[in-house]
Amino acid sequence: MPTLDRIERALHASLQAIEGAGRPPRLAAAMNHAVFPSGARIRPQLVLAVARACGEDDPALTDAAAVAVELLHCASLVHDDLPCFDDAATRRGRPSVQKAYGERLAVLAGDALIVAAFEALGRATGQHVSRLPALLATVCRGVGMPLGIVAGQAWECEPQVTLRDYQQAKTGALFAAATMAGALSAGERPEPWRALGERLGQAYQVADDIRDVVGDAQALGKPVHRDIALDRPSMTRELGLDGALAEFHRLMDETEAAVPVCPGAAGFRALIRHEARRLVPSDLGAIVRIEPLPLLHVQAA
Amino acid sequence: MPTLDRIERALHASLQAIEGAGRPPRLAAAMNHAVFPSGARIRPQLVLAVARACGEDDPALTDAAAVAVELLHCASLVHDDLPCFDDAATRRGRPSVQKAYGERLAVLAGDALIVAAFEALGRATGQHVSRLPALLATVCRGVGMPLGIVAGQAWECEPQVTLRDYQQAKTGALFAAATMAGALSAGERPEPWRALGERLGQAYQVADDIRDVVGDAQALGKPVHRDIALDRPSMTRELGLDGALAEFHRLMDETEAAVPVCPGAAGFRALIRHEARRLVPSDLGAIVRIEPLPLLHVQAA
Repeated sequence: MPTLDRIERALHASLQAIEGAGRPPRLAAAMNHAVFPSGARIRPQLVLAVARACGEDDPALTDAAAVAVELLHCASLVHDDLPCFDDAATRRGRPSVQKAYGERLAVLAGDALIVAAFEALGRATGQHVSRLPALLATVCRGVGMPLGIVAGQAWECEPQVTLRDYQQAKTGALFAAATMAGALSAGERPEPWRALGERLGQAYQVADDIRDVVGDAQALGKPVHRDIALDRPSMTRELGLDGALAEFHRLMDETEAAVPVCPGAAGFRALIRHEARRLVPSDLGAIVRIEPLPLLHVQAA
Repeated sequence: MPTLDRIERALHASLQAIEGAGRPPRLAAAMNHAVFPSGARIRPQLVLAVARACGEDDPALTDAAAVAVELLHCASLVHDDLPCFDDAATRRGRPSVQKAYGERLAVLAGDALIVAAFEALGRATGQHVSRLPALLATVCRGVGMPLGIVAGQAWECEPQVTLRDYQQAKTGALFAAATMAGALSAGERPEPWRALGERLGQAYQVADDIRDVVGDAQALGKPVHRDIALDRPSMTRELGLDGALAEFHRLMDETEAAVPVCPGAAGFRALIRHEARRLVPSDLGAIVRIEPLPLLHVQAA
């Protein structure tokens, strides 16, 4: 099954598992709106790609890790779009959850998606229950305190912030959780995969900053020029556009160098180069909506 | 160690475990504000009391279950107090998190507490990892979709709601998760403990409705008369004060009848009668702030 189909199927199954008589229908609809139709699904693709590179032996557990990471990402987007943060009316080219369902259901949909992420992880550990504690810890550290994406978002509420720490927590942490969870779901050590996730996540965040400056709202499916409007730290504000571009390419080089020795290493590196060109093309006017990473080909590399 | 000391110590340890260099200090402070000083700690006391009645054999795991349930309860209070829900300025006699730290940090503190709850659960399963999947599933069902406390809160956003379903989800679900997690943490079957938790939780919710009508904001430590102000379903609105009182006593009788056969059963039943008199005294003017259940004596019963 192609990687994206597998991810969509696993995400659908995770929400179906918590359907049931007696559920509040508008909350269920808001959660679906937050998860479907597909975003780029970068993080779950990373989970699957790393699991394959590690000799995946428990596809249900890998699916659960991918689902957990993606549901947590979706939850963070729903809460980031709330009026008290970005107050975004659009997301992925459609109304944001808070716009479509109201602020209260957006708060609750985010909460319920966080819980659903952990429920999915617990449900899939029949074969390899011994892998669950480390998986749980890794995913939690990618999201919570002290260095996960919630902590990253909280740096926007502090009087002083170091930009790299902020971006590492805001984006790098969940990317690192994705690569590490992929390894853990296959029964392998997670540490060799941390740096790859961290650098790629930081690069994505810098690309996001660049797109916020030079991008087009319609093409990106979300508002632009928000970093200045919300007085938010960003690499383009700190280093200027040229400085941010240099930082992006430095991070993508580090990402490439961070690929561990594994059967698919050459393929991974080629994809990272491809991804760098796609995320921030040399012709900046060509920046369009982020498309999925073609990581499905890694296994064959 | 007395039960409440044990709970406070475990809660402190759970937040200390996610301290660390590089954390955003205001989020850390908001999370502490949400958890300390002590609320009534009813739910973690239930976890511990049931675990003891089941022959507790892994205190670290029981502590983790108690911590998880209480952190999730604290998270729900922080989000319930947000401007888009109750807009409460006070909680436990102090400024609410949103009042003290602002709306953005209240959203994030709630999110981070949810994650911290699951992280605590995963961290404690060294001895009995085989108990983790069921514990995780039980706690998730108490909180998430379709019937947990987040779903309960979401019924406030639906045009139509059945009051008992709403109250069962809004409060009963996490009480049931508490009793069932207590049994699971001791390696026992959870189902015999479900009804006790559900009924007691429903009774608490009805008591809360009654206190909202006849209580005093200063004594309760939170605003009163909110159900009518927020057009929220409540037992006193549906049945009147007398009807709500009758429903409360019916639920407490059912709670007493739901105590499973176990060495501490007589003590449990006596405590439930004591708790009923304390929650809703026959002299309604005597309603004061909810004090902890003295469940620490159950073991000796």
